[in-house]
Amino acid sequence: MATLPTAVKIVEVGPRDGLQNEKEFVPTAVKVELIDRLSKAGFPNIEAASFVSPKWVPQMADGAEVMTGIARREGAIYSVLTPNLRGFEGALAASADEIVIFGAASEAFSQKNINCSIAESIDRFAPVAEAAKAAGVRIRGSVSCAFGCPYQGEVPVASVVDVVQRFAALGCDEIDIADTIGVGTAKRVHEVFEAVTKVFPRERLSGHFHDTYGQALANIYAALEEGIEIFHASVAGLGGCPYAKGATGNVATEDVLYLMNGLGIRTGIDLDQVVEAGDFISKAIGRANVSRAGKALLAKKQSAAASA
Amino acid sequence: MATLPTAVKIVEVGPRDGLQNEKEFVPTAVKVELIDRLSKAGFPNIEAASFVSPKWVPQMADGAEVMTGIARREGAIYSVLTPNLRGFEGALAASADEIVIFGAASEAFSQKNINCSIAESIDRFAPVAEAAKAAGVRIRGSVSCAFGCPYQGEVPVASVVDVVQRFAALGCDEIDIADTIGVGTAKRVHEVFEAVTKVFPRERLSGHFHDTYGQALANIYAALEEGIEIFHASVAGLGGCPYAKGATGNVATEDVLYLMNGLGIRTGIDLDQVVEAGDFISKAIGRANVSRAGKALLAKKQSAAASA
Repeated sequence: MATLPTAVKIVEVGPRDGLQNEKEFVPTAVKVELIDRLSKAGFPNIEAASFVSPKWVPQMADGAEVMTGIARREGAIYSVLTPNLRGFEGALAASADEIVIFGAASEAFSQKNINCSIAESIDRFAPVAEAAKAAGVRIRGSVSCAFGCPYQGEVPVASVVDVVQRFAALGCDEIDIADTIGVGTAKRVHEVFEAVTKVFPRERLSGHFHDTYGQALANIYAALEEGIEIFHASVAGLGGCPYAKGATGNVATEDVLYLMNGLGIRTGIDLDQVVEAGDFISKAIGRANVSRAGKALLAKKQSAAASA
Repeated sequence: MATLPTAVKIVEVGPRDGLQNEKEFVPTAVKVELIDRLSKAGFPNIEAASFVSPKWVPQMADGAEVMTGIARREGAIYSVLTPNLRGFEGALAASADEIVIFGAASEAFSQKNINCSIAESIDRFAPVAEAAKAAGVRIRGSVSCAFGCPYQGEVPVASVVDVVQRFAALGCDEIDIADTIGVGTAKRVHEVFEAVTKVFPRERLSGHFHDTYGQALANIYAALEEGIEIFHASVAGLGGCPYAKGATGNVATEDVLYLMNGLGIRTGIDLDQVVEAGDFISKAIGRANVSRAGKALLAKKQSAAASA
């Protein structure tokens, strides 16, 4: 058995990456309560909001209010998505601890989504990165479609490495390797992380996996074997898959925590409180809880309550 | 990266282990069509029926009719569950290729479920095993609760090894290590298989995982790293978890095949046909398809059809 890390950082992305896909507007107070519950559960890092044009993503229009409303836990990092300088100014005004910039490892995806090449898309972030550095704000770069693309299919490992190097050149503190459509499997995870750890420090790389084909936990396990120590997850599995209606999106945080607990890997996060937060948000927005561990633990709790 | 097997045997257990948990009786013709579809998809081994008292498991009352009705693919093994000699006689009359006998690795589970010790429960199978040997029928032993028990919680690795040795003494050709309630995680999987491969040939041990806490694929991956080459799975994730209402049970075959395909491990099974079989049975019995890969592939197919 490979030696695994003894502790990992779990970044909770549900409030931003998850809720962003909800059609109906989620009230600001609900977003704030969700984040507060997650802060109390012990997450060291929460992706809390997006400072993007409300025309693009109306669900995230209340980013400033959310950032003002939450009770921040000392030491925790609250990250926000910033597509441009204007977004960065909003993030700075909201005292975000970290900004997130993004680029695809797939040329077809970049062209189709933002109508420019991968290289151009990342160059555009240069002024944002510069401003963040000047302001002492952490920068995270997110590499989407790192394991496959809905338009071009296969994504070469070399393309992932190239985007990682571009983000590194911009001064990113942390870089996410994201399986946006959930098509990756464990062998590819080994290959991709083996390659990217050669060009960027292992301890600042994170795995962002989707469970669309049920592979997320196996992929996380493979990434742990590569020494990866940061993972993204979404409470209750918030966030669907825009490329396959009805399919699963982000891996559920509860399932990831159950894995880490079983492996004896420290997270500093209280699973019970996360299960409760998942139940809260699922009910608040009227969406099925898609965390398997979450559902099983809630069922156990209910049957214990019924027999008490 | 550990060296993984180049080919595995996937045993489809949906028609028996999966359907057994359905409250409403599934018509014999539906069971037969399901098995026939799975045979055509290429499964080398299908758990097809149970020769158990209809008082205990009314859903499986039509075992003989199912075995008569199916079109067997040459070379494939059709297994049936046999709790006693009477069940074995039915299995023999139905020309089953393999009988399945079972025992728990948890003393509490054995006492609570069949009111006797583990040792007694396995001793009772001696006449069945003897009769099977005499008739030249394969015998599979299934060790339930190998990773945890709903009553006693922890199950020592030594208990699993003990049951494996008892099944080996009865002459079992193959032995399943089953995570009946889905609580196992990858580290424990390594520990259990490392221990049982010391007392029984690796190539005749199988992993039977449940996805109740979302861990099944990570556990299968860990078992592959231990060199395990036989895995059980249930099409569309048929079969819930009797110990947690609403929770997931058997790992979905489609998700397992997606993993194996991604790892380049041969199964001889056509994933597309399995996805269709999963769609067929889910609709036939009015149950949600809980295979993530199955749902994603069906969604892709529908969107392709819509845009064609």
